[in-house]
Amino acid sequence: MWQPQNPNYQVRCQDSFSRQPLMAFIGAILAKVEPGVCEIHLPYRKELTQQHGYLHGGSMAMLLDATAGYTAFTLIPEDATMLTVESKLNMLRPGIGSTFIGAGQIIKAGKTLTIVQADLYAVSDTGKKNHCATSIQTLMTMVGMSDEHQVNNNQLETKI
Amino acid sequence: MWQPQNPNYQVRCQDSFSRQPLMAFIGAILAKVEPGVCEIHLPYRKELTQQHGYLHGGSMAMLLDATAGYTAFTLIPEDATMLTVESKLNMLRPGIGSTFIGAGQIIKAGKTLTIVQADLYAVSDTGKKNHCATSIQTLMTMVGMSDEHQVNNNQLETKI
Amino acid sequence: MWQPQNPNYQVRCQDSFSRQPLMAFIGAILAKVEPGVCEIHLPYRKELTQQHGYLHGGSMAMLLDATAGYTAFTLIPEDATMLTVESKLNMLRPGIGSTFIGAGQIIKAGKTLTIVQADLYAVSDTGKKNHCATSIQTLMTMVGMSDEHQVNNNQLETKI
Amino acid sequence: MWQPQNPNYQVRCQDSFSRQPLMAFIGAILAKVEPGVCEIHLPYRKELTQQHGYLHGGSMAMLLDATAGYTAFTLIPEDATMLTVESKLNMLRPGIGSTFIGAGQIIKAGKTLTIVQADLYAVSDTGKKNHCATSIQTLMTMVGMSDEHQVNNNQLETKI
Repeated sequence: MWQPQNPNYQVRCQDSFSRQPLMAFIGAILAKVEPGVCEIHLPYRKELTQQHGYLHGGSMAMLLDATAGYTAFTLIPEDATMLTVESKLNMLRPGIGSTFIGAGQIIKAGKTLTIVQADLYAVSDTGKKNHCATSIQTLMTMVGMSDEHQVNNNQLETKI
Repeated sequence: MWQPQNPNYQVRCQDSFSRQPLMAFIGAILAKVEPGVCEIHLPYRKELTQQHGYLHGGSMAMLLDATAGYTAFTLIPEDATMLTVESKLNMLRPGIGSTFIGAGQIIKAGKTLTIVQADLYAVSDTGKKNHCATSIQTLMTMVGMSDEHQVNNNQLETKI
Repeated sequence: MWQPQNPNYQVRCQDSFSRQPLMAFIGAILAKVEPGVCEIHLPYRKELTQQHGYLHGGSMAMLLDATAGYTAFTLIPEDATMLTVESKLNMLRPGIGSTFIGAGQIIKAGKTLTIVQADLYAVSDTGKKNHCATSIQTLMTMVGMSDEHQVNNNQLETKI
Repeated sequence: MWQPQNPNYQVRCQDSFSRQPLMAFIGAILAKVEPGVCEIHLPYRKELTQQHGYLHGGSMAMLLDATAGYTAFTLIPEDATMLTVESKLNMLRPGIGSTFIGAGQIIKAGKTLTIVQADLYAVSDTGKKNHCATSIQTLMTMVGMSDEHQVNNNQLETKI
């Protein structure tokens, strides 16, 4: 349904993802990249939990932030990067599972702003899937701004 | 202005915080706990950044989730714990600094629901403070539910 | 999929809707009420527009607030009413059309809190449907509180 | 603190407000316009209430939408108009009063996006002020797009 502007979008998403130190730190994997769609998988680790042993709300928010980002990233031009403008997250159920999946899909892709829905599912050892959180996020396409190199902060401020 | 229901609230907050593996994992410190107010400090680490070297949006969300949680936690009764219901986060500026501060304050503390504002500031080596993100979060007081022990998920579902 | 707790839920929704003066004032019609689902229709009126002749963002918010409310209302017990806790609205396209439809569906119905997605569509004279806004809302079931009679505000404060 | 780009911003705000049919329909008054600050007053009318006689949540959302819009409008260039991108609203207390005040202030004014906080207060006959709702909204400055004349929808779509 969505048409990528960069035919090489999958390689570019994986490459950008691999340059985010946070994703390696938490053990996240970019598992699926299609036009307007993305999935990030996060295996359970005790380090990501809260006091009751559930996935921490902050870990949920982190996973969904990256999920929405790479969902939007699938559709941007080659000479652009993405910035998150805002996000809204509703927790639905405690994060109990052996793997957590962030699943994103584009609601609207505009010239400047892209709206993404990103949902979090907890998958148990037996494959049972639980819908744990849902989020809506707004991202901004930064044309003429490199994803690969250091961005000049002043240049960035004049665009946002 | 706010009156804690548990005179021992500071010890209880620090104790609960120390039982969140995620907080130790990212290197966060519960720096201030007062009635209806809380500050969590997060020293810069490359592991928490995105591709441009800024604090990752997911790290911002994580820090603000914990900040709002412990802000609300300062006011709850002794036999209760808190759950985050939802959060809304606006990114204002890139996270560039040597320390990041999550600062929370209660907007409304109700019997069941508490509304918290949590802001993120980046502090540079020279002490310059930049307002990087603002969030509003809703939390639910779970009376009769332990913060210290494993929570029964079915019991939890019957309350939320 | 959803099971109403009150077999008489449709009559009760229509009755409650008819007691909201705002709905009559703007000319809204409760067009569909099913378990966990609701549709409110709002015919175009110049009084509801902004300076460019589009449906005002405030009118969108108003329609979606009522839509989410009656979506949640379909599932509550007979001796209860609903309160909106919070809502998040993303505008997707200008509101241009002859009728506007608020369409709600429940994402999660909990004992205390219900999460609803409510979308706004603009329908043109030729039947073309445009997705203009999407919202996520949290509502609270107020058990033991009448929908029909005046609510005591102090009683209400002790529950929220 | 904020510097308007258009010295004539107050007249321009009042003029734009007067061209919004919804504001006249609900009886709203643009009571204060300063750089980055705005107040809209809404006298109580039964037509704006819900079934318990309180100000309808939809009326709250409507008042805050307009409040955030004109708060952002105070700072835009002469050849521009504003669009609301998204809003998040937390209801804090029932809307009981003889006048309702929407009070907006800018959190960040960027080149493209402006973040506004808008709060709703209910004022009783005796002058008692109650904080009933708080919202955060994101607005987009549409440069080269008239506030006064009909906007071409296709032109608009290529910018958002």
